[in-house]
Amino acid sequence: MKRSISVICGLLLLTVVAHAQEQQFANIGDLKLQHGGVIRNCRVGYRTFGTLNRDRSNVVVFPTWAGGTTEQLKGSIGPGKLIDSTSHFVVAIDALSNGVSSSPSNSRLQPRLRFPIFSLRDTVESQHELLTRVLKIDHVKAVVGISMGGMQTFQWIVSYPNFMDKAVPIVGSPRLAPYDLLLWSAQLEALKRDPNSARALDFAFGELLLTTPTDYNRRKTREEVFADLEKARNDTKRFNANDKIRQMQAMMSLDVARDFGAVKAKVLVVVARFDHVVTPGPATEFAKLIGAKLIELEGDCGHLATSCESRNLNEAVTDFLK
Amino acid sequence: MKRSISVICGLLLLTVVAHAQEQQFANIGDLKLQHGGVIRNCRVGYRTFGTLNRDRSNVVVFPTWAGGTTEQLKGSIGPGKLIDSTSHFVVAIDALSNGVSSSPSNSRLQPRLRFPIFSLRDTVESQHELLTRVLKIDHVKAVVGISMGGMQTFQWIVSYPNFMDKAVPIVGSPRLAPYDLLLWSAQLEALKRDPNSARALDFAFGELLLTTPTDYNRRKTREEVFADLEKARNDTKRFNANDKIRQMQAMMSLDVARDFGAVKAKVLVVVARFDHVVTPGPATEFAKLIGAKLIELEGDCGHLATSCESRNLNEAVTDFLK
Repeated sequence: MKRSISVICGLLLLTVVAHAQEQQFANIGDLKLQHGGVIRNCRVGYRTFGTLNRDRSNVVVFPTWAGGTTEQLKGSIGPGKLIDSTSHFVVAIDALSNGVSSSPSNSRLQPRLRFPIFSLRDTVESQHELLTRVLKIDHVKAVVGISMGGMQTFQWIVSYPNFMDKAVPIVGSPRLAPYDLLLWSAQLEALKRDPNSARALDFAFGELLLTTPTDYNRRKTREEVFADLEKARNDTKRFNANDKIRQMQAMMSLDVARDFGAVKAKVLVVVARFDHVVTPGPATEFAKLIGAKLIELEGDCGHLATSCESRNLNEAVTDFLK
Repeated sequence: MKRSISVICGLLLLTVVAHAQEQQFANIGDLKLQHGGVIRNCRVGYRTFGTLNRDRSNVVVFPTWAGGTTEQLKGSIGPGKLIDSTSHFVVAIDALSNGVSSSPSNSRLQPRLRFPIFSLRDTVESQHELLTRVLKIDHVKAVVGISMGGMQTFQWIVSYPNFMDKAVPIVGSPRLAPYDLLLWSAQLEALKRDPNSARALDFAFGELLLTTPTDYNRRKTREEVFADLEKARNDTKRFNANDKIRQMQAMMSLDVARDFGAVKAKVLVVVARFDHVVTPGPATEFAKLIGAKLIELEGDCGHLATSCESRNLNEAVTDFLK
């Protein structure tokens, strides 16, 4: 009898945990934007992992990378992963315009490019609203983010310096370097007009710059190049040019490099030496200005170093969050 | 009197030399193509520098890079430059589809994309015709080429193994690596766009990949990125998408990697470690297979290492040609 109760409790717990990890939404109302305008009936998607402790001191905020969803963050959460959810209550949040939170692709009142241009400051604002007003969390242990998530992390530590104890921007930037601006400008140009061509070019930019040529040549054959491109050209799933456009514009407008004086959190900055998507200069400088701990991933996977060197990265972040 | 004669002779010589460096053309008739088809009334542009010696043993063939003309090769010819024209008779040759030799932009009988797809084998063939039939040169001291000129050099040493004593393919390739194929595929896609978008994307690909992000970020400000792109978008000079398309297709079809056994020339292979346009793998392997001398440029200028490290490069090539 005792045994079957514990089994039932176990199943219940599993159900609760499984449910928590599922997609949830909060409606935060109209979101006024930094540079004017408003996102109407703003919706923020999120998922939670782990259990909030009694004194609410174990919250880790984990925003998504560009084009990414909280569904895709699952692989980075758990024992031995980037963020351990056995000790932390992880709130993974869908960034604006990722197709889950309010986006050109899902807004009824502001569809397609009638969806306003917003900034990563606005994205962070939407997350602050979710945390404080909906989840009633006024302080978190840490904000951790990868790539555009790292950019949001830089924005977080400047916008709300006292909101977190620690922060870990990973292959992010406080302000895009010239090379990064050029890359996104070119991608914006590529996303215009004919959808098939846009898909092929969008895919090609990713392939050309997410890793280094050395790594790419090691992984791909000449034949695969053409097959991959043809597949990308015809793959309509999940591709929404307008969502990408608004996120790119948000990244390009990021500029908190001069606000380093505001930072109160203890920060671990992670960059990748051969990162060709988020070049490491601005994050490295920022780390020096605030006296943050800096880790430079040295491998030849470029921006994908967070996967290729995940073991070292996960250990370092786990240590830092202890 | 003696003095004025020598002055007159000097002036005459200068005139001859100056004239020789000017654009010249040879009509080599219909050029049958490797994979079928024909370039009708094929015209090959060239310029000569220096003086052919009596035993015709000082000829150096110097084909153009992608999109380049013999006009642009001038800067690489002369004392202390890549090829010294005081000791060599340099025949700089305009590659097919560069807008000077027969090209989609200048062919009356086969205008625009009615100009047939050709290979770098055909390009070399057009140069062999020029040299043997028009200039009556049956053997040369060396073939030297940069980038697509380096690719033509690889094709030369395999197509006509006994034609040259030496060869120097510089940041070239005997067969494009997967990364390079992806880059050209993406550029081909970009060139299909409307002209302004094509120009902007073509420019962006060049800026993103000709050098490394580190070097780009050192040279450019954030403001310049946007100004450069806007300028490229509106710059109609010299931009002919069809010429570029046919040259890209020629590069992509190059494949002499397995023909290393044919090579008779003494070869110096030059690659750049961080070259993101012509990645160094295939040339490096080829050099090892034929026991050639290999120089790896180590700087962070990527494909532009031939400029950034020109002093070392020029010295090495000058020594090799001695």
